[in-house]
Amino acid sequence: MNATAATPPATVQRLAVIGCGLMGGSFALALRRAGLVQRVVGVARSPAARQQALHLGVVDEATDNAPAAAQGADVVLLAVPVAATAATLRALAPVLRPDALLMDVGSTKADVVQAARATLQGRLGRFVPAHPIAGKEKAGVEHASADLYRRAQVVLTPLPDTDPDALQHAQALWAALGARVRVMTPQAHDAALAAVSHLPHLLAFAAVYALATQPDGADKLALAGPGFRDFTRIAASDPEIWRDILHANAAQVRVQAAAFRAALDAFENALQEPARLQQLIEEASRVRRTWAPAGATPSP
Amino acid sequence: MNATAATPPATVQRLAVIGCGLMGGSFALALRRAGLVQRVVGVARSPAARQQALHLGVVDEATDNAPAAAQGADVVLLAVPVAATAATLRALAPVLRPDALLMDVGSTKADVVQAARATLQGRLGRFVPAHPIAGKEKAGVEHASADLYRRAQVVLTPLPDTDPDALQHAQALWAALGARVRVMTPQAHDAALAAVSHLPHLLAFAAVYALATQPDGADKLALAGPGFRDFTRIAASDPEIWRDILHANAAQVRVQAAAFRAALDAFENALQEPARLQQLIEEASRVRRTWAPAGATPSP
Repeated sequence: MNATAATPPATVQRLAVIGCGLMGGSFALALRRAGLVQRVVGVARSPAARQQALHLGVVDEATDNAPAAAQGADVVLLAVPVAATAATLRALAPVLRPDALLMDVGSTKADVVQAARATLQGRLGRFVPAHPIAGKEKAGVEHASADLYRRAQVVLTPLPDTDPDALQHAQALWAALGARVRVMTPQAHDAALAAVSHLPHLLAFAAVYALATQPDGADKLALAGPGFRDFTRIAASDPEIWRDILHANAAQVRVQAAAFRAALDAFENALQEPARLQQLIEEASRVRRTWAPAGATPSP
Repeated sequence: MNATAATPPATVQRLAVIGCGLMGGSFALALRRAGLVQRVVGVARSPAARQQALHLGVVDEATDNAPAAAQGADVVLLAVPVAATAATLRALAPVLRPDALLMDVGSTKADVVQAARATLQGRLGRFVPAHPIAGKEKAGVEHASADLYRRAQVVLTPLPDTDPDALQHAQALWAALGARVRVMTPQAHDAALAAVSHLPHLLAFAAVYALATQPDGADKLALAGPGFRDFTRIAASDPEIWRDILHANAAQVRVQAAAFRAALDAFENALQEPARLQQLIEEASRVRRTWAPAGATPSP
């Protein structure tokens, strides 16, 4: 399931970053720092974002025209909001170079694959769906960093139609940025991410919501400490991005929510049985203490 | 609800720390650094802990005999596991100086107050139940720090029987350590902490448990990133301590769990209704983004 490129990738001549925000901007900055890109063209809808991307040195050229940016590019990174994915792919398909590598950075993969099948036609083989497991609560190119993907895991979910060359190119690029690359099916990705990311976000949102909507919620909140701060950090995430992720992966999120509810039942039923409660907590505490986030330990 | 001592407290002549671990050890270190204590006597069951407390300069004297340590002390801090509270209070009652200030540091207060009423007899008026909202996942005197209570909130829950002098002394001591002192009833404390600490721990335990007990839980866990790390940090907490807290405050934890389940239902029902889902997430995200942990902002 793991894959690491042994040879460094060839220098990218023209990188088109479609959606030049935190994710796309960080990819451009990281490639630049690695000396692996000659020219970066960024696409952003708002003039302010284009100005900022230029000002911060993230891109050499900024435009609001995605097909124009992608024209002649040897690598195209799609980093637009999920809702815009299908329309953007449709607009890009006719102008993509036949040998261009096309990747996205979306947090869900089955829906992106479906959109790619419906739109990319003859370019489908050059599309490598990608999900870099990295991010911040704050979006926008002003938070982009050449370090965002360093030691992060990047999951690639190739289709049966994907050219082996395109997959290998994608692996080499991400590995050159210091990421740990994994390859799996879109379905396995979505099931796993529902468990380790999407459901935790849903739970954090629900926990903050439940507290905030109590009559004396503000008074209670004033007593919250560092444990609450960390537990709910992800509840500050961008609402539109998470609306799309949770909606796109609703089926797998429901599977994980059901597993969570069963566990919560067990813990609540054990509140009056200290010995059983301790057993349950010990299992959770043991797992959490022995787990280390990817990157903190060597790749297995 | 807030109280800050205007005048610094008198120097403590003899501080007895009954249970010389993270919380008790940090109190001793902080008082020392503030130049507010002459002699610290620490009580620990294990010879290794006593040795370490002496070695780290947390205490001047270490013993396993709580009554002997408390004898002649003008301030006694009880920092033993919840399960040992009643027995320890009973052992201390006969030897406490009539003017000694007695405090605990427990995370639940109604149960401690009940134990104090049952054991302290004539010394009840000198007992000021305290809960410093500070801590780490790691217990033990080796993690004690003079900074643990700096800018932390400390809740004092006096009884109707509590001497105003004792309450004022307690306020002055914690304030001198840099803590923000709040005074409320034991019941209000337990209801608020169930919401902002106890339920979040229960949810984090249950979330890790639900993931770990899936057949491919380890594979999924390997994909978890920084969001999961922070969300589940509190799930690594000490099982015995949290067994006692959750058991002691089970009724309020259930109230909060019910509120959380209602919120989770609303979020799950909205998975297929993007507009509604966004509304719910926006409310949670707004509350979380505008909240800052106590200490990060000036006291209101």
